Amino acid sequence: MVRFRALVIAVLMSAIWSHAGWAADAAQLEQNKKTVRAFYDAALNKKDFDEASKYLGSQYRQHNPTAKDGPEGLKGFIGFLKEKFPNNKSEIKRIFADGDFVIVHVNAVREPGTRGFAIVDIFRLDNGKVVEHWDVVQPVPETAQNDNGMF
Amino acid sequence: MVRFRALVIAVLMSAIWSHAGWAADAAQLEQNKKTVRAFYDAALNKKDFDEASKYLGSQYRQHNPTAKDGPEGLKGFIGFLKEKFPNNKSEIKRIFADGDFVIVHVNAVREPGTRGFAIVDIFRLDNGKVVEHWDVVQPVPETAQNDNGMF
Repeated sequence: MVRFRALVIAVLMSAIWSHAGWAADAAQLEQNKKTVRAFYDAALNKKDFDEASKYLGSQYRQHNPTAKDGPEGLKGFIGFLKEKFPNNKSEIKRIFADGDFVIVHVNAVREPGTRGFAIVDIFRLDNGKVVEHWDVVQPVPETAQNDNGMF
Repeated sequence: MVRFRALVIAVLMSAIWSHAGWAADAAQLEQNKKTVRAFYDAALNKKDFDEASKYLGSQYRQHNPTAKDGPEGLKGFIGFLKEKFPNNKSEIKRIFADGDFVIVHVNAVREPGTRGFAIVDIFRLDNGKVVEHWDVVQPVPETAQNDNGMF
């Protein structure tokens, strides 16, 4: 009877331990989303490289073909935005997280009143810091074959 | 002492119940990824509308501006691929799931030997069936400012 009780307790403790792991994972996903929102707003809307760089890890591996690798590439892109499109507004329409990745679906409007671009950015995080970036960028067309819009 | 023991058991049972919920959620995310992989392969690689339509729900809300709404729009797009780009190969480079959404990062090569397109597709599922689609599409450029590639 004592051994049965010990077994029951061991099973229960294992379930609690496993649940604690899941809860920690869920909390990390939410924290990663918050980090990417803050990073995105600092870089694309505030156009403040110093603030954005607080969210970067020890590297920033860049896959956008128009940007140079590393934090310097991000700095260059933010400088380009500030100079050419100071009113650029990038609005996150939806945000997802899975494992070490955060994905944002964005409408980036470089000049107010224009349709702008549909963008999906994929960020990889390491220890809660942004370390890698991929994106796909497409102009929002004037007309469409359906009435649902691109977002 | 009896009431304390009852409280301990109640807390343990609650933890197990909560853990069961998390495990079910995780299993659903994995199942949704499997569904989208199968749907994608049927539609884009096999170009088989009948097979692809098995994964569709009661609606298919389309946000790609070049496609008509609904399953008929998907049928039209698959017909276009079969006729114009029968060798189209869409390779899923990475896949993510969050809540009711599955996101794929894809290299779609319409003609073998070409660089093709970088695409992110976002699918919403309802009860395990695909019911809504957004995407962003960009040609892979010949040259880039970094050596990391678009994937």
